[in-house]
Amino acid sequence: MPYKAIKEIGEFRLIGKISEIAEPTLEAVPDLINGIGDDCAVYKVSDTLLQVATTDILVDQIHFDLLTTPIKHLGSKAISVNVSDICAMNALPRYALISLAIPPSFTVEMIEELYRGMQHAALHYGIAIAGGDTSSSRSGLVISVSMVGEVHPDRVTLRKGAEPGDLVCVTGALGGAAAGLRLLMREKEIMLEHIENNEPYNRNVMADLQEYREAIKRQLLPLARLETVRFLEAQGVRPSAMIDISDGLSSDLQHICSQSGTGALIHENRIPIHAETRLIADELQQDALTWALTGGEDYELLFTIPKNCSGLIEHSRDISIIGEITEAEAGISITDIYGMTIDLTAIKGFDHFQT
Amino acid sequence: MPYKAIKEIGEFRLIGKISEIAEPTLEAVPDLINGIGDDCAVYKVSDTLLQVATTDILVDQIHFDLLTTPIKHLGSKAISVNVSDICAMNALPRYALISLAIPPSFTVEMIEELYRGMQHAALHYGIAIAGGDTSSSRSGLVISVSMVGEVHPDRVTLRKGAEPGDLVCVTGALGGAAAGLRLLMREKEIMLEHIENNEPYNRNVMADLQEYREAIKRQLLPLARLETVRFLEAQGVRPSAMIDISDGLSSDLQHICSQSGTGALIHENRIPIHAETRLIADELQQDALTWALTGGEDYELLFTIPKNCSGLIEHSRDISIIGEITEAEAGISITDIYGMTIDLTAIKGFDHFQT
Repeated sequence: MPYKAIKEIGEFRLIGKISEIAEPTLEAVPDLINGIGDDCAVYKVSDTLLQVATTDILVDQIHFDLLTTPIKHLGSKAISVNVSDICAMNALPRYALISLAIPPSFTVEMIEELYRGMQHAALHYGIAIAGGDTSSSRSGLVISVSMVGEVHPDRVTLRKGAEPGDLVCVTGALGGAAAGLRLLMREKEIMLEHIENNEPYNRNVMADLQEYREAIKRQLLPLARLETVRFLEAQGVRPSAMIDISDGLSSDLQHICSQSGTGALIHENRIPIHAETRLIADELQQDALTWALTGGEDYELLFTIPKNCSGLIEHSRDISIIGEITEAEAGISITDIYGMTIDLTAIKGFDHFQT
Repeated sequence: MPYKAIKEIGEFRLIGKISEIAEPTLEAVPDLINGIGDDCAVYKVSDTLLQVATTDILVDQIHFDLLTTPIKHLGSKAISVNVSDICAMNALPRYALISLAIPPSFTVEMIEELYRGMQHAALHYGIAIAGGDTSSSRSGLVISVSMVGEVHPDRVTLRKGAEPGDLVCVTGALGGAAAGLRLLMREKEIMLEHIENNEPYNRNVMADLQEYREAIKRQLLPLARLETVRFLEAQGVRPSAMIDISDGLSSDLQHICSQSGTGALIHENRIPIHAETRLIADELQQDALTWALTGGEDYELLFTIPKNCSGLIEHSRDISIIGEITEAEAGISITDIYGMTIDLTAIKGFDHFQT
């Protein structure tokens, strides 16, 4: 019997197989509006209220490294990445459940610090930490957060729904989280080298990361774009499709297009990249645009709106219009600063099983 | 600065510390009725509907051993233990979210098999597998399931609510899951010995476990007591307090008493123990009562009802009345078959951090 390694098929085809197996279970619950394949599941609670639900698992050495991550920040990030998924449905977060698998080396104080980070983020977003589960772990720390949010049926936004002619918008700036990660990894290597060579690692040899504060903060303490959800509601704009950028702009735009049955054309010179991100890319001899397209973990919102809504968002400093939705036949492309058009589907985002 | 190992304070005091940190976040969400400290969080959706939500994390080598656990059974069990938490609130399960951290050694076929077990259980309970998250893992498999259920405000049952004079009831039989686990562990040892000695391990040397089918099934494929929730509703009985037996009767009865501010007196000769469980205990020179009191993982329901409801449940073959709720001052005790009264608080259930 042939056995297939998961990395042979990758994360998204694995999710496809999982969806197929889960499919027959959906019939039991007629109020379910949307199952696997979006940022959240969506189900009807009443004629005026939908709930959305999401879960994210964070694994030591895969999603974080405690050598470079203050544990309180990690707690905050675990909340933020789930809030970001709720925001991607144009919904407001309400309740969080936290599951932990805790290695033997962890102390009570470390768990308290982790929860203080979660508490801080929960208070920021106005959500309740309402329950959870704790277990021991034979290996590293595992954090699984599940979150329930609410949205009016007229406001909910799925990945599908983009139409040719819609504008492609993105919040904030991209690539910063990837830049921050590269800096932290470099710093970790320097630290480990010093330890290996029995040399002191202290403030004298540590890089001054103060000037790269923003990028490191983007990596360690990302904030979900709850204010964008509120802004869009205040402006009376309902996006036709939305996703949060967790895998990278390229991959996440492809999710919108494949589920909407469309293509897209975006423009390099409109992609918001922070000056600091460009500086870090220069210093590390890397490409800031690649970080923006494939770095992931920016937790910005990528959404599409009908063209006639552009006036309603153009005064927002936080939203950039980076391109347009096209017919599927036109493909998914980016024009570079020289006017060349490049196929975006050749540029992949993060895949947990193919790294 | 003094650092405390988690095993010094144990699982329940750790949860206490977590609750304190989470407490301030509860104020943001006035619809939240019950936070950390019960089998589920409870929140109001409308005047006629509450939702309950729970999460359970299953970790390789802590909660399961793939040497003795068919992976499809594991999928089914991951669903059942969450349904059991929903049932403990007297609620009906609706939606499940599944998070997996998958080790590199896992194949696509193994994940499909895991999900087929989940699908099987989901169809059995009538719940939708509505979403999830997949990640790689540097070590063992981690499964985190979160589940949302529904209950009418007049039916919801918390751990608190037991009153002196109430009858203490339990469904099914206890200790079977512990008996099954001991058998599987013995079989694993025999297998590993054979492998170590380069001797074949095949059907000729494998123990015939057919006669212990029920106990092994209790361990590998427990079923949540959804039919008890339906039965109680049909009978018009609302338990005053309820919990599912995941840590063991002793520990879980103490949870009801501490949250209700009561004591309890139960009777050894009324505790339902399957004949097969007693046989296995004899064979392994262990004590079946200890398994029933502290073995855990039986996923039966432990609940209390007003004395005048006893007539409504006495025709159920699945429910045993094992004792009575008392004033707090009387403590929490068990009378043995010789009439001796023993303090139950000295008999501890499973603690993830003190094993």
